[in-house]
Amino acid sequence: MRAEILSCGTELLLGHISDTNATYLAQSLAAQGIDLYHVSQVGDNQGRVVELLRQAWQRSDLIIMTGGLGPTEDDLTRESIAELMGEKMAVVPELEAQLRARFTHSGPMPERNLKQATLIPSAESIANPVGSAPGWWVEKDGHILVAMPGVPREMYRMWEEEIVPRLAKYTGGLIFTRLLRVYGLGESSVEEALTELLHSTNPTIATYAKADAVDVRITAKAERTEDALQLVAEMEEQARARLGDHVFGIEGDTLASVIGKALQERHQNLGVMESLTGGLLASTITDFQSSSKHFLGGVVTYSTDLKVQMGVPQETVDRYGVVSEETARAMAHAIRERLGCDFGIGVTGVAGPGKQEDKPVGTVYIAVEGPEGTVTGMGPGWRGGRADNKRHAVLTALNLLRRYLQGTVIPQ
Amino acid sequence: MRAEILSCGTELLLGHISDTNATYLAQSLAAQGIDLYHVSQVGDNQGRVVELLRQAWQRSDLIIMTGGLGPTEDDLTRESIAELMGEKMAVVPELEAQLRARFTHSGPMPERNLKQATLIPSAESIANPVGSAPGWWVEKDGHILVAMPGVPREMYRMWEEEIVPRLAKYTGGLIFTRLLRVYGLGESSVEEALTELLHSTNPTIATYAKADAVDVRITAKAERTEDALQLVAEMEEQARARLGDHVFGIEGDTLASVIGKALQERHQNLGVMESLTGGLLASTITDFQSSSKHFLGGVVTYSTDLKVQMGVPQETVDRYGVVSEETARAMAHAIRERLGCDFGIGVTGVAGPGKQEDKPVGTVYIAVEGPEGTVTGMGPGWRGGRADNKRHAVLTALNLLRRYLQGTVIPQ
Repeated sequence: MRAEILSCGTELLLGHISDTNATYLAQSLAAQGIDLYHVSQVGDNQGRVVELLRQAWQRSDLIIMTGGLGPTEDDLTRESIAELMGEKMAVVPELEAQLRARFTHSGPMPERNLKQATLIPSAESIANPVGSAPGWWVEKDGHILVAMPGVPREMYRMWEEEIVPRLAKYTGGLIFTRLLRVYGLGESSVEEALTELLHSTNPTIATYAKADAVDVRITAKAERTEDALQLVAEMEEQARARLGDHVFGIEGDTLASVIGKALQERHQNLGVMESLTGGLLASTITDFQSSSKHFLGGVVTYSTDLKVQMGVPQETVDRYGVVSEETARAMAHAIRERLGCDFGIGVTGVAGPGKQEDKPVGTVYIAVEGPEGTVTGMGPGWRGGRADNKRHAVLTALNLLRRYLQGTVIPQ
Repeated sequence: MRAEILSCGTELLLGHISDTNATYLAQSLAAQGIDLYHVSQVGDNQGRVVELLRQAWQRSDLIIMTGGLGPTEDDLTRESIAELMGEKMAVVPELEAQLRARFTHSGPMPERNLKQATLIPSAESIANPVGSAPGWWVEKDGHILVAMPGVPREMYRMWEEEIVPRLAKYTGGLIFTRLLRVYGLGESSVEEALTELLHSTNPTIATYAKADAVDVRITAKAERTEDALQLVAEMEEQARARLGDHVFGIEGDTLASVIGKALQERHQNLGVMESLTGGLLASTITDFQSSSKHFLGGVVTYSTDLKVQMGVPQETVDRYGVVSEETARAMAHAIRERLGCDFGIGVTGVAGPGKQEDKPVGTVYIAVEGPEGTVTGMGPGWRGGRADNKRHAVLTALNLLRRYLQGTVIPQ
């Protein structure tokens, strides 16, 4: 099956937004084993949209459109499809009723919205769980044309809940995917660890480098649910065996959410003292919704004076330097004492641009002190920019705490 | 002049990356008054690339290609252009010498790299200041075809330094742009303030909503440099008059860099005490490179206990609540006392998801205490997600300090 994506919206051609919808759809198509050969962006111009549609209709079996389903005059996707098919748009009473129902609270519906309740004979309406614009599913002469809203959160849900299941019979079955989130290995190391698995065609397995992890997506196809789930489960087991405890979670997890949940289950709490990360460690921890349940607070000790005020012995700093494992240990200990919390994290290092105490940019010392003792870690000395160094140090610290909580590092 | 963008790379069709190159080029073309009607992404397949090129050659005057200029077999942009033009690629001795020179340190050049030193008769080589792959500039029968590397930092520099100047004679002159960064007004309010200016065609003025500001880009075109600069300067003056002190900087500035520079000029320093922002305030301040010169540190007081430990009177919290202007004032005062710094910022509020003290999600109180007294601000009570509420609160706090430092708010 040959697919093609057509994204509509003048804002794309003015560079106001990037076409991340196409990226999302491309990933999903690849996971389903559907070939994608053409992606294009076009403005809100019916002539050009129809011209591209005619071409797509010739060279592709599946045409996926996003955008242009709104109520305004600029929204021309329905009109363009009707012109392509040579059919007339007509209001569908049932859709009109549903549409008007959405407006009862917010006053009467502007009449121009009515076109969101139209269809052409060969189109089927696709429910939009989070917006006013239903999608269109057109099937004719062995071609499928799908039109979805351009608003990402509306498009994602329509795609996952309505379109992917409909495509199952063309893609040779139901699709199930599993995402493993990995930290502590670079993308190439993850691929190396998974080498023999990467060539598998069903399930497929692919890696994606993200800012906070390397994601490994397993996708299986089968006629029956249980078979697909079985295929995913087997591949997941093999992948986990190869990646070991570098796997920290699945879809939706972050290092912060994983440690947050683990601490809350144990009714334990956490405090941090950080310097080079400048507050990003605390901020990342508090990105997790219920973090107030396990996070007592943190101190950003950019000045040695504040470190000492908060309980880091001046002698430690003088003897070993601000950027040292000993100071990281002292910071973890001090914040734990200070806040009376179960776990304390201390992070010190050189964010850059300049060296500090003759230690190169990217040097990081991390200590996690908890009830069973202390574990320490070092940053590999990234040569990234300031922001990257901060981010890497934060993730390395959170990952160390995670492994402490999971018992895969032994505290001294 | 009708432009078209063609981005080459199978990774685009697998969804491994988004085509941000097209977004960047689209913005630049719009600023130069060049119409962009088609953007497409295609994989590393010569047949399909040539097919799209033939079509583009018919409908567009300017074809901009990115990607496919590397040394591997997958890199087919040169081969495709040669096929389109019906010309032969030949190694250019001068380019070969330059290319080999790049490898002297890193060992001998792999022979497959040699194709990066080739040209066809109608192509001109474009210098690549930061990479090994030169671009191609092809001009024939009134059409221009430009091929640039896909690596963004290489493409950006080649575009700005080599291509935009070459395009000047077609776009009716030299281009100069000026970016104003605005905080404290939404994009629609900025557009409203600039209404009469938005229709101007030379210079053009356009707004872009960014995560940390609304950007206003002024772009002027003229035969002579001084005329273009004059046009930009006049429009900038009018825009600044309408936007007042909401304009906090120009290209490259952030609120953190602006307050950082201002504090360093005055030889003054800063400390923060934050709760709902969870460390993001300190982290944003320390994103500015030399922040250690003016930032002494911060405390993330997620627990009331820590607030009190750091000097916030228990009575204040009991009497007015943790989420109150009084507590924000007490936090700013406490951190300033504690660190003995010139300025102290206190931020408290409700990040969500739940209410706190019956105050709705998004409620934020901010206080900035400095040598001349204290100024306070409130978050408008955003209904965004947790991350958005944190970000808005941080930016509002930094903006309040900026206006304090600029004397556009009067401390009490």
